[in-house]
Amino acid sequence: HGFDPIRYVIAMEDLADLRVWRGALNDGEIHAEAAETLGTYVARIAFHTSDLGMDPEDRKRLVARTVNPELCRITEDLVLTEPIRVHEHNRYDPALEPVVAALRADAAAIDGLSVLKHRFMTRGEALIHGDLHTGSVMVGGGRTVAIDPEFAFYGPVGFDLGAIWANAVIATVRAVLLDRPADFEAHVEGIVAESWAAFQDELRTLWPSRADPSFTDGMRATWERAVWDDGLGFAGAKAMRRMVGFAHVTDIESLEPPLRLRASRIVLAIARRLLVRRDDITTPDDLAGVVRAAIDATG
Amino acid sequence: HGFDPIRYVIAMEDLADLRVWRGALNDGEIHAEAAETLGTYVARIAFHTSDLGMDPEDRKRLVARTVNPELCRITEDLVLTEPIRVHEHNRYDPALEPVVAALRADAAAIDGLSVLKHRFMTRGEALIHGDLHTGSVMVGGGRTVAIDPEFAFYGPVGFDLGAIWANAVIATVRAVLLDRPADFEAHVEGIVAESWAAFQDELRTLWPSRADPSFTDGMRATWERAVWDDGLGFAGAKAMRRMVGFAHVTDIESLEPPLRLRASRIVLAIARRLLVRRDDITTPDDLAGVVRAAIDATG
Repeated sequence: HGFDPIRYVIAMEDLADLRVWRGALNDGEIHAEAAETLGTYVARIAFHTSDLGMDPEDRKRLVARTVNPELCRITEDLVLTEPIRVHEHNRYDPALEPVVAALRADAAAIDGLSVLKHRFMTRGEALIHGDLHTGSVMVGGGRTVAIDPEFAFYGPVGFDLGAIWANAVIATVRAVLLDRPADFEAHVEGIVAESWAAFQDELRTLWPSRADPSFTDGMRATWERAVWDDGLGFAGAKAMRRMVGFAHVTDIESLEPPLRLRASRIVLAIARRLLVRRDDITTPDDLAGVVRAAIDATG
Repeated sequence: HGFDPIRYVIAMEDLADLRVWRGALNDGEIHAEAAETLGTYVARIAFHTSDLGMDPEDRKRLVARTVNPELCRITEDLVLTEPIRVHEHNRYDPALEPVVAALRADAAAIDGLSVLKHRFMTRGEALIHGDLHTGSVMVGGGRTVAIDPEFAFYGPVGFDLGAIWANAVIATVRAVLLDRPADFEAHVEGIVAESWAAFQDELRTLWPSRADPSFTDGMRATWERAVWDDGLGFAGAKAMRRMVGFAHVTDIESLEPPLRLRASRIVLAIARRLLVRRDDITTPDDLAGVVRAAIDATG
């Protein structure tokens, strides 16, 4: 549609009829197709940019062309390092200090974040979006569009799913605390299950056409478990950083102060759980149980 | 010392007083310092070319400069794909066919190799040598030198240790079948323990000087376990391919036919064990036990 080389702007598509998903969720709008579309999208990119869908030599050349040192550093610092430490970038209500101080003193949580950071920096599974939170997705008229791909690089596929899931958890906590109708609460809670099911379905649909048939079904099952674990872990990291780090989210910030504090405590409890121990969370239902338990515990 | 641009030859060091380690081992020579030197070498490269020893942005630019599509493909094909399948590259004594056919029919072994191939292709932990078998090492006069680094790329650190270990296992089997003196058998068996201890020692010595102190001791312990598991698994893949794949080793090929067959069967049994199940092998002593059990089983 348009190109402005001075400002590095290229207009590829008119999205004027769509709105940012986060805002829609904040308003209680149900966009039933969004989670499934995103799960399918993550699976397709994972397949077609990895050795499943590409010649392995071309793939390595694409890795070289897509290293993204500056923007990866932002994620490494703001998401995977600073939130669990004292850092000038962090900001949060002083009333949260006991909870945040406890997180900073939790060796298992710090180890968990460190292991995730190492995975983020070393597991070049596929070209990933790199910042797929609900503010990077637009919805409307049955369409779902991922925007802002400037963080893309070859990384762990679970990082993109974790971004969706962290924000689904945050949206769920907001919905419950606002006494939103049960169908909306179920909607936001269902985003994890729907995106994960769509990811697995699409991966399995594409699987028979993989470029390298030496990758076995057993390898796929092993990798799916790794993606799930990464998704949960990175969801924990991303949920935490939205409560205490540099960049917050309107889901929580727009709540009245007492509710905002309670929501932050709940999300931080969930984040800590995901950083410290995930092996007993094997399904989206298990994760929903963790979210509900955290809400009940601060009731 | 010299440079020939036509033949792409650069002479950097005079190694005339050294010999290839494989030949020395075949002759029953003990070079007591070699395994420790190599373990230290792997740890130093792992540290200084990863985010432990480099600025993370510089490290990503080095990843881009060192992708190695053509030579990685050789490893992916000849080591991590073909040996467990019917392939025109494979060659072995027809008397081995029942054992090889059983391996090709073993779904757990095929899955194990496929998972290792995926790790090789996606885990860019550090710049690795990529072909560190005993034919890529020269020894003599107390010196140990790694040569032939043309397979180097950013990959799993355990791959280099696995190359050493596979060849230590093969050398051990040869030594036992030849009734070599007990001190030499212990020497070749000890290569795994000495290289692993040196790797861990050097990594822990360098650790306090890491560029990014947000990597915790707990993360290091997690990563060491992953390197160990990768080392065992890749050792299995490399041991198998030396028995049935495209490139064999003089350790076995130089044996008289009956002994050669027995050695191949033993090494294949060990390889299968390492591909299928490794979680109960947590120390070099455990691995030595697996080697001894395989030798006894074909007694």
